[in-house]
Amino acid sequence: MTVRQLSLPELAETCGALSIGNVGLWREPVQAYGVEATAKLVRAAGLTVTTLCRGGFFTAIDPAARAKALADNRRAVDEAATLGTDTLVLVSGGLPAGSRDLRGARERIADALGELGPYAESRGVRLAIEPLHPMYAADRCVVSTLAQALDLAERFPAHQVGVTVDTYHIWWDDTAPEQIARAGSGGRIHAFQLADWVTPLPEGVLNGRGQIGDGALDLREWKGYVEAAGYTGPIEVELFNDGLWARDGREVLAETAERFIAHVIP
Amino acid sequence: MTVRQLSLPELAETCGALSIGNVGLWREPVQAYGVEATAKLVRAAGLTVTTLCRGGFFTAIDPAARAKALADNRRAVDEAATLGTDTLVLVSGGLPAGSRDLRGARERIADALGELGPYAESRGVRLAIEPLHPMYAADRCVVSTLAQALDLAERFPAHQVGVTVDTYHIWWDDTAPEQIARAGSGGRIHAFQLADWVTPLPEGVLNGRGQIGDGALDLREWKGYVEAAGYTGPIEVELFNDGLWARDGREVLAETAERFIAHVIP
Repeated sequence: MTVRQLSLPELAETCGALSIGNVGLWREPVQAYGVEATAKLVRAAGLTVTTLCRGGFFTAIDPAARAKALADNRRAVDEAATLGTDTLVLVSGGLPAGSRDLRGARERIADALGELGPYAESRGVRLAIEPLHPMYAADRCVVSTLAQALDLAERFPAHQVGVTVDTYHIWWDDTAPEQIARAGSGGRIHAFQLADWVTPLPEGVLNGRGQIGDGALDLREWKGYVEAAGYTGPIEVELFNDGLWARDGREVLAETAERFIAHVIP
Repeated sequence: MTVRQLSLPELAETCGALSIGNVGLWREPVQAYGVEATAKLVRAAGLTVTTLCRGGFFTAIDPAARAKALADNRRAVDEAATLGTDTLVLVSGGLPAGSRDLRGARERIADALGELGPYAESRGVRLAIEPLHPMYAADRCVVSTLAQALDLAERFPAHQVGVTVDTYHIWWDDTAPEQIARAGSGGRIHAFQLADWVTPLPEGVLNGRGQIGDGALDLREWKGYVEAAGYTGPIEVELFNDGLWARDGREVLAETAERFIAHVIP
């Protein structure tokens, strides 16, 4: 998503040119290009798919809407398996229209995980609940903290359900370091994503994530927390940023790699 | 602030017409009208000032900036005393420019409270730390949760330092009800403010607070939490909303009173 202006072949080629061996993919461009075709493309380019984003949106009350969401999530699991990644990132969903019941919405997520977890396991895929920043609690994700995500995940085996640690969403939370330790000791850090925090936030607060090094976060410190918790997996940089999307994607990817080296690598 | 388009005399007159006996004031219009003059105006109108907003902004590192902030906060305490309110609401401040040290910023707040608390007590004023929504953590307030606010407040006597419970800032937090109980049992709920949560958030995320009943919150439930914690003080409605500010202030105040009766009173 950081360079969504690039087509998948352009992305694969640019990763090759920059010696980037891992890439996280989103469902929409993969579906548009074709799931099998994408799998072939990344294999041929020697790329490993780190995660597929995103399943989720489990909070509907209406039974038909719930059944539809679960069917779509099974497809997302299948897509992840085809792409060769073992991790499907989940954005759990906001409050249904007119509802004010956060607790009920969180319980419906647990119900969905109970159905989806065994199916994902059968395809060799782990689910990674991503707590989203509390500013998205009403309309995108009622899971707002790592503690809440772990409270949900720990109802299920770790090889079925874990969490995504994304610095953009949790950096403000003074309990996040101890929750990262909790996640690590349970083997539940299934994905680790970086973005920096910059202000002012744009209207709708979706596409204002900061380029690495531009904002309020000490990303090396956060890398230290997940490493101290035993995490040795890939590190994704996931930037939703209108400014970056308006630029040449190859240049943005090169800049992001430079920033990563300057601000994240010890 | 809900009807900042009204002058202070218009505000006092409209409160009288609507049989509203309590009002929370902000420093800027009070200073513009004159502190003594405002005190006379509200006394003559039979109004009680619930709180004065706001002191705070304690996170500067530079000694001169810190001294200036403390001096301004002493003035705010004096203004509160002159207005006859016992509560000064504090917005603690964000990260200083270029800093990434949330922990250090929070410690500097504690240092400032240690200096300001005894002065406030000497004037009969209590300080009320307001945790602001985590979307303000970088640029306005590094105190993002009731738990953090109480961790700070509890270093000092409750008659010097407590918290402001504002639904807009804490509604997403599943630990907030237990933290309200913690605050209540320590006699530290010094102010209670209502606003609803509506999306999409506007650019800068400052002036998009929802009118009572328009959004995702069950405000009666939140009133229940503070009452169960022993709170019997006034309830403020504090809306920063460009749409409401563009309308006739008398009409907005009447509407807000109606909404309060419909959505908050049992």
